[in-house]
Amino acid sequence: MLRLSTPGYQRFAQAKELEMCYGGGEANVAYSLANYGVDASLVTRLPENDMGDACMKELRKYGVDTSKILYGGERLGIYFLETGAVARASKVVYDRAHSSFSSIEKGMVNWDEVLKDAAFFHWTGITPAVSQGAADACLEAIQAANRLGVTVSCDLNYRKNLWKYGKLASEVMPELVAGCDIVLGNEEDAAMVLGIDPEGMDVTSGHVEAEAYRSVSQQIMKLYPRVKKVITTLRGSINANHNTWSGVLYDGETLFKAADYDITHIVDRVGGGDSFMGGLIYGLLSYEGDDQKVLEFATAASCLKHTIPGDYNLVTVEEVEKLMAGDASGRVSR
Amino acid sequence: MLRLSTPGYQRFAQAKELEMCYGGGEANVAYSLANYGVDASLVTRLPENDMGDACMKELRKYGVDTSKILYGGERLGIYFLETGAVARASKVVYDRAHSSFSSIEKGMVNWDEVLKDAAFFHWTGITPAVSQGAADACLEAIQAANRLGVTVSCDLNYRKNLWKYGKLASEVMPELVAGCDIVLGNEEDAAMVLGIDPEGMDVTSGHVEAEAYRSVSQQIMKLYPRVKKVITTLRGSINANHNTWSGVLYDGETLFKAADYDITHIVDRVGGGDSFMGGLIYGLLSYEGDDQKVLEFATAASCLKHTIPGDYNLVTVEEVEKLMAGDASGRVSR
Amino acid sequence: MLRLSTPGYQRFAQAKELEMCYGGGEANVAYSLANYGVDASLVTRLPENDMGDACMKELRKYGVDTSKILYGGERLGIYFLETGAVARASKVVYDRAHSSFSSIEKGMVNWDEVLKDAAFFHWTGITPAVSQGAADACLEAIQAANRLGVTVSCDLNYRKNLWKYGKLASEVMPELVAGCDIVLGNEEDAAMVLGIDPEGMDVTSGHVEAEAYRSVSQQIMKLYPRVKKVITTLRGSINANHNTWSGVLYDGETLFKAADYDITHIVDRVGGGDSFMGGLIYGLLSYEGDDQKVLEFATAASCLKHTIPGDYNLVTVEEVEKLMAGDASGRVSR
Amino acid sequence: MLRLSTPGYQRFAQAKELEMCYGGGEANVAYSLANYGVDASLVTRLPENDMGDACMKELRKYGVDTSKILYGGERLGIYFLETGAVARASKVVYDRAHSSFSSIEKGMVNWDEVLKDAAFFHWTGITPAVSQGAADACLEAIQAANRLGVTVSCDLNYRKNLWKYGKLASEVMPELVAGCDIVLGNEEDAAMVLGIDPEGMDVTSGHVEAEAYRSVSQQIMKLYPRVKKVITTLRGSINANHNTWSGVLYDGETLFKAADYDITHIVDRVGGGDSFMGGLIYGLLSYEGDDQKVLEFATAASCLKHTIPGDYNLVTVEEVEKLMAGDASGRVSR
Amino acid sequence: MLRLSTPGYQRFAQAKELEMCYGGGEANVAYSLANYGVDASLVTRLPENDMGDACMKELRKYGVDTSKILYGGERLGIYFLETGAVARASKVVYDRAHSSFSSIEKGMVNWDEVLKDAAFFHWTGITPAVSQGAADACLEAIQAANRLGVTVSCDLNYRKNLWKYGKLASEVMPELVAGCDIVLGNEEDAAMVLGIDPEGMDVTSGHVEAEAYRSVSQQIMKLYPRVKKVITTLRGSINANHNTWSGVLYDGETLFKAADYDITHIVDRVGGGDSFMGGLIYGLLSYEGDDQKVLEFATAASCLKHTIPGDYNLVTVEEVEKLMAGDASGRVSR
Amino acid sequence: MLRLSTPGYQRFAQAKELEMCYGGGEANVAYSLANYGVDASLVTRLPENDMGDACMKELRKYGVDTSKILYGGERLGIYFLETGAVARASKVVYDRAHSSFSSIEKGMVNWDEVLKDAAFFHWTGITPAVSQGAADACLEAIQAANRLGVTVSCDLNYRKNLWKYGKLASEVMPELVAGCDIVLGNEEDAAMVLGIDPEGMDVTSGHVEAEAYRSVSQQIMKLYPRVKKVITTLRGSINANHNTWSGVLYDGETLFKAADYDITHIVDRVGGGDSFMGGLIYGLLSYEGDDQKVLEFATAASCLKHTIPGDYNLVTVEEVEKLMAGDASGRVSR
Repeated sequence: MLRLSTPGYQRFAQAKELEMCYGGGEANVAYSLANYGVDASLVTRLPENDMGDACMKELRKYGVDTSKILYGGERLGIYFLETGAVARASKVVYDRAHSSFSSIEKGMVNWDEVLKDAAFFHWTGITPAVSQGAADACLEAIQAANRLGVTVSCDLNYRKNLWKYGKLASEVMPELVAGCDIVLGNEEDAAMVLGIDPEGMDVTSGHVEAEAYRSVSQQIMKLYPRVKKVITTLRGSINANHNTWSGVLYDGETLFKAADYDITHIVDRVGGGDSFMGGLIYGLLSYEGDDQKVLEFATAASCLKHTIPGDYNLVTVEEVEKLMAGDASGRVSR
Repeated sequence: MLRLSTPGYQRFAQAKELEMCYGGGEANVAYSLANYGVDASLVTRLPENDMGDACMKELRKYGVDTSKILYGGERLGIYFLETGAVARASKVVYDRAHSSFSSIEKGMVNWDEVLKDAAFFHWTGITPAVSQGAADACLEAIQAANRLGVTVSCDLNYRKNLWKYGKLASEVMPELVAGCDIVLGNEEDAAMVLGIDPEGMDVTSGHVEAEAYRSVSQQIMKLYPRVKKVITTLRGSINANHNTWSGVLYDGETLFKAADYDITHIVDRVGGGDSFMGGLIYGLLSYEGDDQKVLEFATAASCLKHTIPGDYNLVTVEEVEKLMAGDASGRVSR
Repeated sequence: MLRLSTPGYQRFAQAKELEMCYGGGEANVAYSLANYGVDASLVTRLPENDMGDACMKELRKYGVDTSKILYGGERLGIYFLETGAVARASKVVYDRAHSSFSSIEKGMVNWDEVLKDAAFFHWTGITPAVSQGAADACLEAIQAANRLGVTVSCDLNYRKNLWKYGKLASEVMPELVAGCDIVLGNEEDAAMVLGIDPEGMDVTSGHVEAEAYRSVSQQIMKLYPRVKKVITTLRGSINANHNTWSGVLYDGETLFKAADYDITHIVDRVGGGDSFMGGLIYGLLSYEGDDQKVLEFATAASCLKHTIPGDYNLVTVEEVEKLMAGDASGRVSR
Repeated sequence: MLRLSTPGYQRFAQAKELEMCYGGGEANVAYSLANYGVDASLVTRLPENDMGDACMKELRKYGVDTSKILYGGERLGIYFLETGAVARASKVVYDRAHSSFSSIEKGMVNWDEVLKDAAFFHWTGITPAVSQGAADACLEAIQAANRLGVTVSCDLNYRKNLWKYGKLASEVMPELVAGCDIVLGNEEDAAMVLGIDPEGMDVTSGHVEAEAYRSVSQQIMKLYPRVKKVITTLRGSINANHNTWSGVLYDGETLFKAADYDITHIVDRVGGGDSFMGGLIYGLLSYEGDDQKVLEFATAASCLKHTIPGDYNLVTVEEVEKLMAGDASGRVSR
Repeated sequence: MLRLSTPGYQRFAQAKELEMCYGGGEANVAYSLANYGVDASLVTRLPENDMGDACMKELRKYGVDTSKILYGGERLGIYFLETGAVARASKVVYDRAHSSFSSIEKGMVNWDEVLKDAAFFHWTGITPAVSQGAADACLEAIQAANRLGVTVSCDLNYRKNLWKYGKLASEVMPELVAGCDIVLGNEEDAAMVLGIDPEGMDVTSGHVEAEAYRSVSQQIMKLYPRVKKVITTLRGSINANHNTWSGVLYDGETLFKAADYDITHIVDRVGGGDSFMGGLIYGLLSYEGDDQKVLEFATAASCLKHTIPGDYNLVTVEEVEKLMAGDASGRVSR
Repeated sequence: MLRLSTPGYQRFAQAKELEMCYGGGEANVAYSLANYGVDASLVTRLPENDMGDACMKELRKYGVDTSKILYGGERLGIYFLETGAVARASKVVYDRAHSSFSSIEKGMVNWDEVLKDAAFFHWTGITPAVSQGAADACLEAIQAANRLGVTVSCDLNYRKNLWKYGKLASEVMPELVAGCDIVLGNEEDAAMVLGIDPEGMDVTSGHVEAEAYRSVSQQIMKLYPRVKKVITTLRGSINANHNTWSGVLYDGETLFKAADYDITHIVDRVGGGDSFMGGLIYGLLSYEGDDQKVLEFATAASCLKHTIPGDYNLVTVEEVEKLMAGDASGRVSR
């Protein structure tokens, strides 16, 4: 997807040029992983035109495998971004309807081939939201992954405005989530997508209690027995420039809680959740059996994402581990 | 329509930002007229979002009346532009399908109200190309204009790639052209849109003989008796930076030929034809009975357009008349 | 007035380009109102050259009525702005002497015609500061407004360096303020312009007590019996990037106090007071009888202004009301 | 003087930022000379503010001695520049009235001190045009230079729009020119400033005959016996991007004619004449007795100026001499 | 190698930012080939730092295989570029000494492995110029290619200023050229590198006779019997913006001559020869046996390169073939 | 030295252009002093190419005397800077090996001549780190200064990665420091350079106790009896955007402590220490005998540096003294 953002906090009507970046939920996770040196391949559909080509080249630049990408369909999805400040929220104008990606259909991808040597298959709740075809293809992929023993992770990522093809998230998502091993989501996602009662949590307060996520996680695991870990990012929105950041991971027994980060001067918060997921998968691949460390890696990685312009994270394992080790001082590295 | 262009001759994959401009065939004519101090109103449909709003504000800035604009539909049409140089052609990637404009339908506009005090109604061949609804609304407008005695002008503007809703230009356009008083078009337009034989003209040669347009014009007038003037721009494409430019106007008796301009360092050639049409309407309103002067104004105006970045012309009557008077020296005006 | 500012916190001597914006006290109020959908017309004088024309086009773009603008005089006023950071103050170099605006004179504007359907006439203390002619024209306008029953609002806006034509603010302003219904000003304005004793208030301390404004307001109302409301913005200057922001309104009986905002990452604080005034007038027109709400709207609106680059506010009523309702979280609006 | 120009051929109303450069007739000559390694000092008056300071720093950067600059007055003169293309002329909007420079007066500069070790004193016709004080100071300087045996050079540089303080160029200039040894000017300058008959020359034709300048030169020398050399630049204005360029020098006996240059892709033609004068003075200092070489240096230097963005020339003696030697091929120098 | 160039024809001392691009002789050829869809791998050495990493990512973005790159050494080579105009030549300041590439040594690369499935091995005369180690590694590679039956192509590319490690080109190059099948070079290269008499050719005249290259080619083939084709680009340097362009290919029997191109508005001429070589190799792979077509492809491809900013060519086979077919009109491709 | 930095918090691989600035330890001190109106001359060695010339011009622009600069050697040292945010540290990639400066050698500078009228000679620990020649020349200068009674100041400035020519800082620095009167350094410098025990101080904690510096200072003075004042900057690194800032000065008797500054929105922290040193020297020259004031000036000056983009400080004495007087409110200065 092409992101076009106004420079320097300008409102849309003020802008004379737009900054470009190529992102999107699953793509951002792939960028993160490629950056950590993990083989990551993106399966999507891009238009056969220069915009699709430029998007592919950006993925390839950062090391994402682009050989599984399909070409065809009408257009590259776009979203326009106006970056907010203090009490003025960032604003997104979606222009992603009729995208090549939304035209993907069951049967277009040979998932057994694609997934044959994979360790992870990751999808987000945006995919089944855009079209019936995308939902079908997603289900097909999850089933193949389950069949092949590939771990399936999911970011519920509920976006009300995207579900426009005649079905509700609550009708489509349960079957998909049922095939997942790892689920990332917050209480709003859980409520809207899976019908789970968030028990009085209040997301607009800018402050959330980690412990409260235990119940939501347990409800998810009860409904979807395949799910082994439920993870939630904890964002405290002090204002558009200043957030707090942490995460919790529940493994069915323990509720792990990550360190708290105070992100006082956000550069770009878009893609924060995706970078968390990218860090989580890296952690699961690298620190097997140490869920605290897995969670800390994901949280520190996504904390750093907030300092990088664009949708995707561009930090190294060394940089994340330095932050995990406690050095948040930002002293010049010469 | 939003135009997004790469800066500094960059190819799409090289760009990190895109320059914005809001144009489109009929809009560009309105910009020209407003700039000359003529009241000009644009009837279109824009999405109810920030991109539609920004487009409206750009029109308003340059004095186009925006009070007749409808709001609704899915999205603002976009086209991506990569400016070519020398032997490398400029490249346009259209992303205008499903635009708010294409969702316009018969009955949405009260044409009698809109046109009641108008002197001219202008449309281009792009409108009936984008959707059946737009073609219907265009016909409706032409019929109202004919009824109210409003002069109807048309730029045939044939774009093969736009006719995608199941009808051919040759099926739709004749009925629309039949209601026109003034027709702008070249031999390719005439052939593809109206089925007229260009008699061996060769547009790729970079050199065209003005006299050859007499026959095409006469054929158009014979088929469409309402048409009183047929006009053609004469572009000689030496290369992407260097064109020659002129125009011919046939009034049923005389074939007028404008001065020849040598545009050696093109800044932006998009919208050249639209600026010609804007100049032509201004000329018809201002130099009644002097078709040579009308044509010279249109040609000089559009010659100057090639030096202005963006889709639309931003020159004054004084600047055009100075060029008509023969001063093409470009000496600094202090 | 043309504002030319250095990009990216550069000092003047470092800059190679300057960013342009067209603002000015009364103009900024007009922009605000137009943006809220209120008909707003600016009466000013611009030079008959391209800079005057560009200034007019910017106003028109954002919906300000420009049909009352006079043309003539020598030049467009300019101010150069260097944006400060932390302990380094922003710096303004005025270059507004001999402006077309300062050449305005009594008798140039037909105020009865201009104000005949108006609800409000707004002026700032900058106008009478620039020239005798401007002071005269301002008085003429106030008298017409009083005669026609148009509410007169004023922002005292004392700028010591502007009073250069031989008179002191304290000589000129009282007669003008006597015709006002609504007065915006702080204790420094009141002291220097109206000779009112601020009773030991200290503006450089970065912290001001709202209650202390009651006395200043009462003194103003006693001296100027026409004045029905006195309003003051409360800016706490922690540093150049971080201010606190609120406001008080005294209606002769009650001292209303707005919510306090913590503006931690200022984008552009110029025009803060003007955006407050724009919000105030909108509030008075829309929430008649609810002065608390009027004040809250003005305060929230101007809080948001600090996040918008340029001199004038570009926020919608919905955005202001969302903030008034308490959501300052800056969460992405998708 | 501060020049503010729109980037990328934009018209004034399109621009969102302006590019800065600090130039002016005499300053540009000083820049040229400093660049060739010649000691050059600028005598001017700048305002005591950041804009004056930035202007001084730009001069100092390129090696011009700034120790003779006076400080005071109201403002730094400004001119706005919109760069034209092809048939659209570049446009200058002057905003230099009330400048600090125009406030200079007789007696402010100790010319005997300033000129005591100088070889040349150079002035342009712009100086006496801006104010009586500047004209007086200029005369004072010329008289001191004559007294001290310092060669006086002058660029007549007639600009109709600048003479606004109540006197005509033809009233003021003769006395000043009478003190000159070297005069640069074209036939229009000679006619308007000195009342000399250009004998039917046509400057708008884009083609001028070198030989025709002999008569004008002879008339000047007859009227002003001190003048030893009269020089004229020959600009053929094919269009705004393409000029031809040459020069003639008459020494009272011989009319020297420089090589003809074809400047096919002008980058910036402002300051062309000043760079010619800079080259001429360098030539007179370096190639004494070889007027052909002097003229060739001046012409080649100013030909190169057309390729440099900004008002002043930034080329080395080596670069000029390479072009004089005939290498105009523009091959990459590695 | 990192290229840092001043924007907008600025001289070095004027610049406040530099535009980045990652190029270099052999890299540019690889970019071209990857762009045509040919597998291309670059063997080089990059520093283990962020600049080396960024260089690798740029190669990967455009599809060049980066898996054979070695890491280590001190620094990434840099060259600074100031783009000239008209009679002012572009200027290159090399800062490539001590580069990681120059630290490459014999034995570092397993050439048998690298070349085992290759069709072509290409090198340029810059490689043996930078260090003894690079020369040794180059020889090693050529010998492996000869052993494995891989075609070896070479661009003689003589740069006097680069040979600084104590040997002359004429001492080192002959042994390397002896292993080549295809040689690209002009008469200056042949003279300086191989000691061949150019027989009075004059490269600075801006006009060269194709036929004259037959003799040089024959001399090369006589001295180096392995060489089967000698190719020369024909650049006529009218000025820095305007060149003519063609090429000749001698196959031992016939001297083929390409079409002549008139490149009237050069965007970037750096890398012209490399893009020619890239086109030549593509042609040899695709049009076997049709040397005229091979040469036309190379010439048309490199003609288009002159319109692309940066060091390397970014055109498709379709674009090149369209130009070969004669359409140099630069008409907008919609 | 040329600094090339990525704009807008971009990572190196994201950048398409780099912002330029010319700095370096001693140069930054000279810039500061020149800005305060103190005569300051830089002794360095620059390459004889356009990059060296541009560096010299930048120094000259800001008033640093460049007449003592030597020319020669291979290249201008470069460092690449990626500005960090929050928990992501800024990153420096040095590319300064083989610089012209490092090629300086004993005997190249006539120090007696250079220092004959100087009040201060300042050097930093970077100079002896880059090469034996630079260390030798530095010693030579210190000895001359001692001989001539010129006060010698030193910023220990330990950079581990720079000491690469075979000697350790602890082998080279003591002899140099022995000739110093004023020493600036922190506990890490003292430990690594002079072998002094920092007694458990922890620099990464983001909080340092001023008092703890007494012991380090006393140890330095004991070892180097010539040293009369030891100064340390106190930086608390809360994160990359937010630092606290102060300083201590020990004069052998009293430990002076400056005011604490809270730098909440850092614009550019590079050169903070150099600007402190510049302020210190200015203070020593201007407030003789009042070490508290000297220290306050240095601290306030360098606090302001954090708000200026680039390596060097561009503030006036008035601006520093305004901050010293307690006004850190950043209110707009009109």
